[in-house]
Amino acid sequence: MNVSKAQERDRYDSLAPLRDHFCLPDNTIYLDGNSLGVLPKAVLDRLQITVATEWGTDLISSWNNHGWIGLPQSVGEKIAPIVGAAPGQVLCCDSISINVFKLLATGLALRPKRTTILVEAQDFPTDRYIAEGLAQLLGPDRCVVKAVAGDELEQALNSDVAVLLLSEVNYRTGYRHDMAALTRSAHAVGALTCWDVAHSAGAMPVAFDQADVDFGVGCGYKFLNGGPGAPAFLYVAKRLQNQVSQPLSGWLGHRQPFDFTPSYQPADGVLRYQAGTPSVIAMRALEAALDIFDKVSLAALREKSLALTSFFLECLADQTCFESFGVLTPSDPACRGSHIAITHEQGFAIAQALIAAGVIVDFRAPNIIRFGFAPLYNTFEDAARSAAILGAIMAETRYLEPCFQRRQKVT
Amino acid sequence: MNVSKAQERDRYDSLAPLRDHFCLPDNTIYLDGNSLGVLPKAVLDRLQITVATEWGTDLISSWNNHGWIGLPQSVGEKIAPIVGAAPGQVLCCDSISINVFKLLATGLALRPKRTTILVEAQDFPTDRYIAEGLAQLLGPDRCVVKAVAGDELEQALNSDVAVLLLSEVNYRTGYRHDMAALTRSAHAVGALTCWDVAHSAGAMPVAFDQADVDFGVGCGYKFLNGGPGAPAFLYVAKRLQNQVSQPLSGWLGHRQPFDFTPSYQPADGVLRYQAGTPSVIAMRALEAALDIFDKVSLAALREKSLALTSFFLECLADQTCFESFGVLTPSDPACRGSHIAITHEQGFAIAQALIAAGVIVDFRAPNIIRFGFAPLYNTFEDAARSAAILGAIMAETRYLEPCFQRRQKVT
Repeated sequence: MNVSKAQERDRYDSLAPLRDHFCLPDNTIYLDGNSLGVLPKAVLDRLQITVATEWGTDLISSWNNHGWIGLPQSVGEKIAPIVGAAPGQVLCCDSISINVFKLLATGLALRPKRTTILVEAQDFPTDRYIAEGLAQLLGPDRCVVKAVAGDELEQALNSDVAVLLLSEVNYRTGYRHDMAALTRSAHAVGALTCWDVAHSAGAMPVAFDQADVDFGVGCGYKFLNGGPGAPAFLYVAKRLQNQVSQPLSGWLGHRQPFDFTPSYQPADGVLRYQAGTPSVIAMRALEAALDIFDKVSLAALREKSLALTSFFLECLADQTCFESFGVLTPSDPACRGSHIAITHEQGFAIAQALIAAGVIVDFRAPNIIRFGFAPLYNTFEDAARSAAILGAIMAETRYLEPCFQRRQKVT
Repeated sequence: MNVSKAQERDRYDSLAPLRDHFCLPDNTIYLDGNSLGVLPKAVLDRLQITVATEWGTDLISSWNNHGWIGLPQSVGEKIAPIVGAAPGQVLCCDSISINVFKLLATGLALRPKRTTILVEAQDFPTDRYIAEGLAQLLGPDRCVVKAVAGDELEQALNSDVAVLLLSEVNYRTGYRHDMAALTRSAHAVGALTCWDVAHSAGAMPVAFDQADVDFGVGCGYKFLNGGPGAPAFLYVAKRLQNQVSQPLSGWLGHRQPFDFTPSYQPADGVLRYQAGTPSVIAMRALEAALDIFDKVSLAALREKSLALTSFFLECLADQTCFESFGVLTPSDPACRGSHIAITHEQGFAIAQALIAAGVIVDFRAPNIIRFGFAPLYNTFEDAARSAAILGAIMAETRYLEPCFQRRQKVT
C-alpha cells in the first residue's frame, strides 16, 4: 500500500531524474549517504583524465596547465553556494579535524582574553577531540573545553566563551540547530561560532553568510558524494580574514609559495588556511561530484529531503513494531536534518538484519539505527520498502539470529 | 659519443626492466621525479577497482570488507622497509606539513624544559613554516625556532634544543646530511631529531632505525610515485610511543573511534598519529605505486642513482658550456641525494629552454636548475642526452629567446 503510494510520489518528483547521475548498487536500498555518498558517474571519467592524462602525460606541468595549484580555491568556490557563502570565503582542503584545529586556533587568537571553547556534549566526537587537543597543547590558562547538552548551549554562552563549536545537524539524533539564532546568541556575548555542516551541506541550503557565521567546516564524502575520505572544506567570514595567522602554516598557505622564502608570510584571505600539498586525485573526484549541484536548487533538495523523512516516519508508524522503537529525530521538520534515528535495545542486531536484507543503514552506539535520506538519489519507494522490511524483520524476530548479534570483543 | 656509452650502460643495467612498469611521456626526458614521480601502470587498474567496485558497489561496507579503515597502517607498513623501520612505527597520513606539526608538538612535550626547534636555514620551507606556526601558537616562553646554515647545525646543538628538524637531502643543493652522525650529536645534548626524507625515500636506503632517529616524515609523490599530492607518512620510534598525546587528535587516532566516546583516548603506538578520515582513493594510488619496491633492493637503487648522477656530471663536464655553471651538488657521492643542482645567472631561462626541448627539469629561485634522477625509471641515455641538449641550448644561446625569459610580475 505504502509502496504504491511511494511510486506515485516518485513519478511526480521533479528531482527523480537526478538519480540517473549516480551508480546505485543492485538489489540494495542505500540509506547511508550521510556516512558515505554514492558514486557519481561523472567521477570515473574525471579520474581517468586526471590520472592518465594530467598526471601520466603532462606530469609536473599540470600544476599550472591543468590548474592543480588552484584546486583548493576552485573546488572551494564550487562548494561556496552550497553553504551560502559569497566568493572568497571557502577553501577545500585537509580533513574536518585538521580544519577545526586551524579555525579554533584562529578564534582564540581573535579573542585573546577568552579561554573557553563551548561544545555540545553529544556532538560528533572529532570536533571535540580536536578542541581537547588544542586545549592540552595550550594549557588551561589559555584554553579549556566546556561540553554541555544541546539545550543548555544558550545559557552556557558567556563572556569567557571564545568559540562555540557546533554541528548544525547532530550525527546521532538528526536534530537541526537554529544556526542563525545560536550565532546571534553567541555574538551577543562576544563569542565566535564555528559550525560543522557535515550532515547538512548537500542535503539542504546552508546559510553561512546570512546567519552571520564566523567559521565553518564540512565534509566532502557525505551528501556531497566526493568519495571515501574526500577532502573537507572550511569557511572563514570575510570580516575575520587577514587579522591573524593560523598555526598549521604549511607552504601552500604562504603568500608566494614558490619563492621559498625562509620565513612564513601568510597569503591574503582564506588562502592562508591551506597547509600542505593536497591530493589532486581526491580533489578531482570531489570536483566532478559537485557538478550535479549546478542542476538543482537547494530549496528543492531540502523540500524533497523533508518529504522523504516525513514519509518514512509515516511508513514506520504503519508498522506494528513501531511502538517498540524510540524516535530520536524531532517531528518538527524545521528541527530535522536528512536522516531519521530510531532506538531499540536490539539496535545493533536489527541494523545488521536490515543490512543483510539489502537495506543499508548504520548503527551508532549504544542503541541507534540511522536511516539517511539523500534527496539527490533516494526515492519514496526506498522509504516505503525499507520501513516494510524493518516491519518484517521485527515480526519474524529475524534479528535474534545469532549471526546478527554483536560479537563480544576479544581482547 | 656519450650517448652510445650511455646505451651500453643501460644494456647492462639490471634495473632497466623496471622502467616498463611506468607510463613515460613520449619525446620527453623526465628529470623531475624529485618533484612529481611518474605514473606507475598499476595505479590505473587499482583506482578503477577502488572507485567502481569498492566505492561504487560495496560502498560503506568497504571500510571493513576492503580494509579501508586500516589503510594508514597497512600503507605505512609498506613504506616502513623503504625507510629502514621495523613494523609498528610508520603511518601513512595527511601531508608532511601536518605531520611535522604533530611530531614537533610531541617532541616539545617529551622535552618540556627545552624550547628550541633547530632547523637548517636553507631547508625546504614548509618544515620551517610549520615550526614557526607552532612557535607562534605556543609563545616564545615555550617554543622558538632557530635557523642556522647546514654546516653550523652541529655547533648549534645545545641543551635548549628540543628537536632538530632537518631534511636528509636538501631540496636545493642535493646535499645529503649524515643522518646517523647528526642524530648522535643531537642525542649527545639530549635533543630529539625529526628527519624529513622527502628527497631520499625511494631513491636510496633510509635508515631510521639504524640511525636511532626519533621522528621522521616523508612524501608519497616524489620517488615513491604515489601521484600528485599523495598522502605523506610519518615515523615515531617505538621507544617514544605512548608517552604523550599529539594535538591533532582527530577521531581516527582514538583508541576506539567507533565507540564515539565523549573524550579523546589516544590509540596505542603510532596509530594515535592519525587525525581525520584519509582519502581512500589517494591512499590506494600510493599503495599500488609502492608494490614496485617489492621487486628491487634499495642498495641497488642507490647504486644506480649515484651512477646516474655521476655519469650526468661527467657528461656535463664534456660540454664546453660547463664552465659557465656553478655546481651546488657535492662531488662526493656519499654526500649526494638523487638530483644534481647547477646554477647560472640565466637559470630560469635555461630551465625553460630545456623544458621546451623536452628535458623536464625544474628551477628553484634564485638561479638553480635541478636535474632529478629516479633510479626506477631514468636511464643513462636520459643523462647523456639531457647534457647534450643543455650544451646545444647554451652553444646556440637559445635561452635568450624572449619566450624563455621570466615575465615581470604584474601586480
